[in-house]
Amino acid sequence: MKKIAVYTSGGDSPGMNACIRAVVRTGIYYNLEVYGIKYGYDGIINGNIKKMQSHSVSNILQRGGTILKSARSNEFRTKEGRQKAYEQLTKHGIEGLVAIGGDGTFTGAKVFYEEYGIPVVGCPGTIDNDIYGTDYTIGFDTAVNTALEAIDKIRDTAAAHDRVFFVEVMGRDSGYIAIECAIGGGAEMVMVPETTTTISEVSDYLKNLRKTKTSSIVVVAEGDEEGGANTIMEKVKTEFIGDEKKFKVTTLGHIQRGGSPTAKDRLLGSRSGLAAVEGLLNGQYNCMAGIINDQVVYTPFDDCINKSKPLNKDYLKLQEILSI
Amino acid sequence: MKKIAVYTSGGDSPGMNACIRAVVRTGIYYNLEVYGIKYGYDGIINGNIKKMQSHSVSNILQRGGTILKSARSNEFRTKEGRQKAYEQLTKHGIEGLVAIGGDGTFTGAKVFYEEYGIPVVGCPGTIDNDIYGTDYTIGFDTAVNTALEAIDKIRDTAAAHDRVFFVEVMGRDSGYIAIECAIGGGAEMVMVPETTTTISEVSDYLKNLRKTKTSSIVVVAEGDEEGGANTIMEKVKTEFIGDEKKFKVTTLGHIQRGGSPTAKDRLLGSRSGLAAVEGLLNGQYNCMAGIINDQVVYTPFDDCINKSKPLNKDYLKLQEILSI
Amino acid sequence: MKKIAVYTSGGDSPGMNACIRAVVRTGIYYNLEVYGIKYGYDGIINGNIKKMQSHSVSNILQRGGTILKSARSNEFRTKEGRQKAYEQLTKHGIEGLVAIGGDGTFTGAKVFYEEYGIPVVGCPGTIDNDIYGTDYTIGFDTAVNTALEAIDKIRDTAAAHDRVFFVEVMGRDSGYIAIECAIGGGAEMVMVPETTTTISEVSDYLKNLRKTKTSSIVVVAEGDEEGGANTIMEKVKTEFIGDEKKFKVTTLGHIQRGGSPTAKDRLLGSRSGLAAVEGLLNGQYNCMAGIINDQVVYTPFDDCINKSKPLNKDYLKLQEILSI
Amino acid sequence: MKKIAVYTSGGDSPGMNACIRAVVRTGIYYNLEVYGIKYGYDGIINGNIKKMQSHSVSNILQRGGTILKSARSNEFRTKEGRQKAYEQLTKHGIEGLVAIGGDGTFTGAKVFYEEYGIPVVGCPGTIDNDIYGTDYTIGFDTAVNTALEAIDKIRDTAAAHDRVFFVEVMGRDSGYIAIECAIGGGAEMVMVPETTTTISEVSDYLKNLRKTKTSSIVVVAEGDEEGGANTIMEKVKTEFIGDEKKFKVTTLGHIQRGGSPTAKDRLLGSRSGLAAVEGLLNGQYNCMAGIINDQVVYTPFDDCINKSKPLNKDYLKLQEILSI
Repeated sequence: MKKIAVYTSGGDSPGMNACIRAVVRTGIYYNLEVYGIKYGYDGIINGNIKKMQSHSVSNILQRGGTILKSARSNEFRTKEGRQKAYEQLTKHGIEGLVAIGGDGTFTGAKVFYEEYGIPVVGCPGTIDNDIYGTDYTIGFDTAVNTALEAIDKIRDTAAAHDRVFFVEVMGRDSGYIAIECAIGGGAEMVMVPETTTTISEVSDYLKNLRKTKTSSIVVVAEGDEEGGANTIMEKVKTEFIGDEKKFKVTTLGHIQRGGSPTAKDRLLGSRSGLAAVEGLLNGQYNCMAGIINDQVVYTPFDDCINKSKPLNKDYLKLQEILSI
Repeated sequence: MKKIAVYTSGGDSPGMNACIRAVVRTGIYYNLEVYGIKYGYDGIINGNIKKMQSHSVSNILQRGGTILKSARSNEFRTKEGRQKAYEQLTKHGIEGLVAIGGDGTFTGAKVFYEEYGIPVVGCPGTIDNDIYGTDYTIGFDTAVNTALEAIDKIRDTAAAHDRVFFVEVMGRDSGYIAIECAIGGGAEMVMVPETTTTISEVSDYLKNLRKTKTSSIVVVAEGDEEGGANTIMEKVKTEFIGDEKKFKVTTLGHIQRGGSPTAKDRLLGSRSGLAAVEGLLNGQYNCMAGIINDQVVYTPFDDCINKSKPLNKDYLKLQEILSI
Repeated sequence: MKKIAVYTSGGDSPGMNACIRAVVRTGIYYNLEVYGIKYGYDGIINGNIKKMQSHSVSNILQRGGTILKSARSNEFRTKEGRQKAYEQLTKHGIEGLVAIGGDGTFTGAKVFYEEYGIPVVGCPGTIDNDIYGTDYTIGFDTAVNTALEAIDKIRDTAAAHDRVFFVEVMGRDSGYIAIECAIGGGAEMVMVPETTTTISEVSDYLKNLRKTKTSSIVVVAEGDEEGGANTIMEKVKTEFIGDEKKFKVTTLGHIQRGGSPTAKDRLLGSRSGLAAVEGLLNGQYNCMAGIINDQVVYTPFDDCINKSKPLNKDYLKLQEILSI
Repeated sequence: MKKIAVYTSGGDSPGMNACIRAVVRTGIYYNLEVYGIKYGYDGIINGNIKKMQSHSVSNILQRGGTILKSARSNEFRTKEGRQKAYEQLTKHGIEGLVAIGGDGTFTGAKVFYEEYGIPVVGCPGTIDNDIYGTDYTIGFDTAVNTALEAIDKIRDTAAAHDRVFFVEVMGRDSGYIAIECAIGGGAEMVMVPETTTTISEVSDYLKNLRKTKTSSIVVVAEGDEEGGANTIMEKVKTEFIGDEKKFKVTTLGHIQRGGSPTAKDRLLGSRSGLAAVEGLLNGQYNCMAGIINDQVVYTPFDDCINKSKPLNKDYLKLQEILSI
């Protein structure tokens, strides 16, 4: 293998740049030519492909976002789109790919590999941490810390005004961000998609809590089965008597995606990027380079996509005990 | 004067604790007894009043929120409420008050002074910076920096995905936070209550901008005449053709109120608190202790409440020129 | 077991308060009385022991330092000191201890257990991460992130002035902080006690580097075999010809110990504290409650003290490859 | 005037990039060609000069350091050097300069203007805030906030271990950073070049303080007449009896120069840069564009260099009263 290319796809996450940098420099270290593809799969289709040097990735390690930009591609979902993509890669002489992204990114990579035999290794770049085959995803630690800092600030106001805050954090299908924020933020309650909490339970719990605490924080994963923070707050209001005017909602939103990555995310992005290139060189294809128990593990895309990674139940118990 | 008391009222703001600390320690320095009143005017009415020592305010300088808690009091708006409040103060022997808050707080203080002759000096504690008689209000600098850090993060994502973000910051009646965030965040547009910007202008500007920039940020003060960020985004969508799916909205919300105060807010809170106590001792009543051009200035409550502090027009021009 | 007590000892680390909180609340959850001992072993000897409630640990989760204060005790190293300590515990009816600290803390706990049979469980509270029996120690992640933010700032100046910065981070016996900072900070070189790097190698590497880079950062663990950053810089100067005036040294020092803990350290402190109490209840004594591969593991104090935890060699290779 | 150029010189400071951006975009707004000179005066001499576009300064507003790099030039101090510099400017057709830096930078600019009549306007870029003609210098607010965050962290450890910390902040000739950090950090003492504090006074004060406080922080400006933090600590030790082992020193060093600028520094850098270009266009030469009382003021270089800006005495009194 002489020429490889790297791209980012799906929602951006902090540490993607660290990963790109690692791919480029590891490639160069192993005497490969490394190309950068802009805008993910659309970029392959359109030939938005440029050779990268070591200095192309200088001073990006600490930046959020992705210098290769990201996009969701409808065209790549079509057979015609993938055919064009294949032709572009052939034209550029690219023999292997590193795909940084989440489930959707890996699904595309898997199909592409199966159809055209292009070796692809994935790196888990998403803030949601919901990918099987790695303890953490690149960007998760930063997102949790960003949300946590926000919750620390909200607690100042909640305490000053004796309020109950419903704080919505990201997590469409998983409660990873929510549960870590809840424990780290000392939240009184957490609502995650993985467990069922009824509105009556929330209402009862909050009523009871008012005997010992003057303010509370409920962390809500956006994908909770009862809805987002606003919906849940409105539902609770209908059951809760007395203090509804104390209820407030904050949706943290997109700030969770950006920002300078934490040490953990820079390290994880770097390790995963290096491992992806070594995977390509060692015939580890059609898989993701994750880190499990501090060791590199290559997991087939099939498993990454189809298996689910459960929440550690200890965390839920911990949150419950510590909120007394 | 031998006994004074201090309270916070209205929305909390970072630096209120620095101000409380300064009132307590300056009072002690001048051999006064200093009392803390919890929950603002409600606390006076209910006699929620406790003596404070120097160590009561240890280690709070760097904390957001207010250790004296805050509340909006309906009862104090009634003659009966104020009568009760007066009786409580008499009972505790309190001869002077320091009121930390905004317009509403000062209005209460003014009426109280006029009816009962209780000397009150105010300190400008609000993130909005919309108070006449001081260059800055306590909490404004922190709120701007918090919003700015959020905008920096959002720019990462906006750039990675070529998006147009409408970011709503606080400011019901004024665009101070918005304009400083827009300049500091390099925003392409800013919408503030003080100026009229039509939806067509926004739409045209954004259309034009797409020729030279792939992503943009529009900072919206929550009190803009066209509505909040979400409303404005929806309106622009109806006029804008082509890239509406690139539009995103983030409402920063309550994170802007909390957090550890910046150096400026700690300094301002400390200076204003000291000046308030010295004002009480020197017969400067019924006024606010603000800082203008780096000097303490006492401004009658009447002016603080009725006069308005215009935006510096240089800022609007600066934002416009720099967003090219 | 009805009454337990908790103390912190040795250097403070961010997340100790999260751990104290978890011990107190978990104890209460299991119907124990929980006591707080101030100033570590000295506090046991002097009977500086107070009962704690759930609210005693409110609002400390996000604070650096330790509300129980810490100290190094010479008296506890004597038989007489430990005898007094035992008498105090008997007097207070305390049947089990949670000791938060590092090697020295655990050594004291082990001796105490062996002599008097007082059940003790340890929690790994130190920024250095050099304790066997846990993947990470409480405070390590915060220290790394604090050092990393400092390095990010230093890089701004290094780049602006084309300088070579020698940055000293904590780590008397281990290079954990140094290697994670070096990778996360994109450092050109790292010097750790675990590996031998000669001054000539540094000098040659830096000379060579000047061909491709205008500025560099060398991260030095304070315990490197060649000395601290200042010593190393002076030594390199004698071998290096041409650009010595570009050399600068920064010793990060005590800022690495303090500050609000990261999400990881709050979580780790909380989990370890909970596990310590459960250990006491389940007869797991004379050991430390660490987290290995995301699961609670109790490791005998003997092993924690005598076994060493090696640096992951992958990290050293990663740093080398990515600094090209 | 058709062509202007901008450079940074002397120590870098956060907000310099905001200032460069403002110069470039304001120039383009007024239909000028704007050139960037790298490495300050050396860059003029060597013709290190390149045309800049609006996008050349994209995404730098939030970055510390200076994209134009900085250097101290010995050659420019010679007549020959300045002659070369003049020839380079003539060759490139550059008719006006914006010089971002401090005293040394302005001295060079003044001499150059006097000898060759090249119009120059300065922008106050230095963290020290010791320049006459502007309320604040670009970078000062960031440096103070960086130092303050460090002091907040140090206080965690000081409190946990009952220590007296001597913290050295930047300020070779002035105590601006020190006094604002001391007030903001709740320091027990501050030592600045502008006032005389003897070692005996420090020693007595600290002895006395131990009656009411268990830990203390002394902020020392590096240019204090008694020496830096380490020297002062050693001196105090010789007079102080009992607790010397509680003394610790931290020198904050270069972290104060870097980092993402605060809102204030981005605003100040932007305003000053815009004003500098407008100054060139309006015949305001040989002067600095500062901000006094929120208004642009042009002050002759002569005054900037020769007049000194005193510390606000209110600050010293405030620090003293609040540290009780």
